[in-house]
Order: sequence, then C-alpha cells, then structure tokens
Amino acid sequence: MCDICGCQLHEHHHHDPKVVEVNRSLLEANQKQAEANRHYIEHMGAVAINLISSPGSGKTTLLERTIDELKESCGIGVIEGDIETERDADRIRAKGVPAVQLTTGGACHLDAPMVHGGLHVLEHLAKGRRLDLIFIENVGNLVCPATFDLGEHQRVVLLSSPEGSDKPAKYPATFKSADLVLITKSDLLPHFDFSVEEATSQVHLLKPELEIITLSATTGDGFLRWLTYLRRLLAQRLPHAH
Amino acid sequence: MCDICGCQLHEHHHHDPKVVEVNRSLLEANQKQAEANRHYIEHMGAVAINLISSPGSGKTTLLERTIDELKESCGIGVIEGDIETERDADRIRAKGVPAVQLTTGGACHLDAPMVHGGLHVLEHLAKGRRLDLIFIENVGNLVCPATFDLGEHQRVVLLSSPEGSDKPAKYPATFKSADLVLITKSDLLPHFDFSVEEATSQVHLLKPELEIITLSATTGDGFLRWLTYLRRLLAQRLPHAH
Repeated sequence: MCDICGCQLHEHHHHDPKVVEVNRSLLEANQKQAEANRHYIEHMGAVAINLISSPGSGKTTLLERTIDELKESCGIGVIEGDIETERDADRIRAKGVPAVQLTTGGACHLDAPMVHGGLHVLEHLAKGRRLDLIFIENVGNLVCPATFDLGEHQRVVLLSSPEGSDKPAKYPATFKSADLVLITKSDLLPHFDFSVEEATSQVHLLKPELEIITLSATTGDGFLRWLTYLRRLLAQRLPHAH
Repeated sequence: MCDICGCQLHEHHHHDPKVVEVNRSLLEANQKQAEANRHYIEHMGAVAINLISSPGSGKTTLLERTIDELKESCGIGVIEGDIETERDADRIRAKGVPAVQLTTGGACHLDAPMVHGGLHVLEHLAKGRRLDLIFIENVGNLVCPATFDLGEHQRVVLLSSPEGSDKPAKYPATFKSADLVLITKSDLLPHFDFSVEEATSQVHLLKPELEIITLSATTGDGFLRWLTYLRRLLAQRLPHAH
C-alpha cells in the first residue's frame, strides 16, 4: 500500500521496505494533524465537510448554490484545493463568503497539514464572524484524496451524471469512504446513459444504507434534501448554535 | 517532488531524504521499463497511444467508435487500466478486438511494468494477428498518470465538455505532457457553459501549437480529424504497413 498518494501500488513496490516505511510515516503524520484539525474546528464551534469528486463534477457550483441558500442563517467558510489557479476561491468570494485557495503545485490531493494552514487563514479572513460550516473542496480526483483524512466531520463524494453510473464499482475505495453521495447534474440525466438505480445499487454494495441524494445545483431539483442534511448536521454538532 | 503518484508533495515531504530517494528510484525503474516497452512495441511493428483523462470523459466510447471505423484496415489491440472491474475490456472485446484489463487494485495510474505484462497478454490474445495500433486506456485521473511514461509513442489527453473549459489551467502538467488534446462530447456543448476558445487558449498557453480536436464519439462530429491523425501516425511510424 503506497499511501503517499492514497494508492495501493504494485507488487514490486510492496516489497521495498523503504517505500513501506516512508508511506507509513507520511500517513501517520497526516492522521495526527487531521485529529488536531478536527479538534480545532470543533473548538471554533464549526463542522467541516470534505468534498471529493472527479474534475468538473460540480463541487464549486454546488457550493455556490448552497451558500446562496444558507448564508443568511449560517456562517460559512470555504477552503478550496486545486493544483493551480485561484479560480474557485474567486467564485466563492463573489458570493460574499470567506474563501482560502490552497494550490498544491502538482499534488493530487489535499492533506491535513495544508488544511491546518488553510484553517488559520480562513479564521483570519472571517474577521471575528462565527463560522458554523466549513467546506473543504478537495482537488478534483476520484482516487487519491480518499486516503487522506483532513480533519473533516463528514465526507461527501459527488458523482455527476455525465461521468456514468459505473463509477462507484470502478472507484470503490472513494465511495466506501463517503458519509454521503451526491449524484449531481440531475437536470442532465435525460441526455446521458446514466442509471441512478445502477449507481445506487453499486454504492450500496460497497456500503449498505449509505445516503444518496440526486440533485441539480442549476435547477435546484433535489436541493432541499441536501440542505436538510446540512441543517441536521449543524443541529447535531452544534446544539446551541441555532 | 513526489513521483510515486505523479504529484509534487509539500514542503515537509520534500525535505525527507528517504522520500526523495524512494521516489527517484521508483521513477527511474519506471522509465527504464517504459523504454523497453517502446522498443518492444516497435519490434511488433505497432504504435502505442496512452489515453489520459478524468473519469467519465469518454475514453472507452472513443475507442469503441475508433475500432468500428478502423478495424477493417488496421490491427488494433487495447490495454485497459482501471482500479477495479473488467467492464471496459468487456466493452472493447464486444467489438471483436483483443483487450487486456489491468486492474490496479487501488493505484491511481498505470505504470510501465504493468503495461509490460499487459503487452505480453495482448500478444497472446492477438493469436498471431498483426497489431498496428495499441491503445492504452489509463486509469481515469487527470493528475497522477501524467508522470508515468508507459512506453507510448503518443499521449492523448481527453477533456469532455461537461467538465468545463477551465480544466487545462487547473491541471497544467497533464495537458502540457500531451501530444494531442481531444475535446470530447462536443454534441453536448449546447448544454454546458464550456468555451472551446477558452480551453484552446489555455492549452496553447501551456504548449503553443498543440493540436486540439473537438469531436463527438456519439454523433461522429469531428471524428474524421481524429481518424486522419491516427492514419498519419500509422503512416509515419510504419511506412511499410499500408
């Protein structure tokens, strides 16, 4: 198991004790920092969600509509992960919400030490306003981010209808690690050979009972269930907040 | 630079000499095997193409139509890379073409040693028929496969219209490593906020003059340019073949 990038490498790597040791120590350091992040976020009174998907599955568009719907009732902050560019943070800032852009400069996933830095910057940007809900938008990658705990409370995996309903079977570790699956771009279902039934049964083979919400951030279809999920999460984690 | 998964890791990893050494030795071993693969493929009289994209960008659908168009005039073989499942190889086999499924069991990219094994299996499946064109469909991932030479002659990166035209700027290393970019699912352009002009200018900022073909494997729109590219490649590499 090569955990530098969250992947399991092949036979010839497995047997190299140097590789095994390096990977273990990197993952252990990540896990320690993730626990510290989680405590820190709880100390802030917030709850954090790690959003994972392929490139272009609609993570940022989901956040834009979510912010529109919730920002009056709830303090939102966003940590954006990308290999390059400030584009996504700029889109979030345009919604009037503090956003930190973490550019990995090549790395295929966020890790807990990067998020630790991002949390400090986010607090600074919030200028004393309370943050209830922190979204961490991971690098667009359906493989590597799955292995790295960032200190989140919930992990949400997005699958967009153009990608095809065979993806949970092809990327099992990622879907198995999810607390919620969102099937996005539901308005486009008529144009694609995507079976919500197939995707659902594949996800449930990996993790029975896992909640799946089909929605469109463009039309708002199914969005209420997502907002209900978030409000329930806030109520559970922050009984005194609302 | 952590090259186990094709990513550049962060400060605290950079400075660990164990990490640096392990990564260098893995990449060196990969490169050596890639050169051997390339010689082997040339010895077979074939030319190999490494297809890289996000999950669900239409790599397998592209191959299905390409096989339909070319299989009468040209010996085609396919090596399919996926984390799990034989689905893609099954789709290719249904077209009457030999296909090997490499399942990485977690790894986020193919590497040259895996492809080496795949080439031997492919030759066996071809049962003495000549292979002119070998497609290697990488694991769906727009980040990690870019660092690993598999022994291909040409690298083709796919970007589908639902993913958004900002992706070349966000995933520069992958697009920079391409010999050709295909903008796929062009039939869906009317449904998405995708600017072919933006994608083109971003790609050309990374690599001026890089050839870009916009096509749809569903409607066949633009497909002739792709077939012309393949025929030109075959003619250049195999002057005596056709």
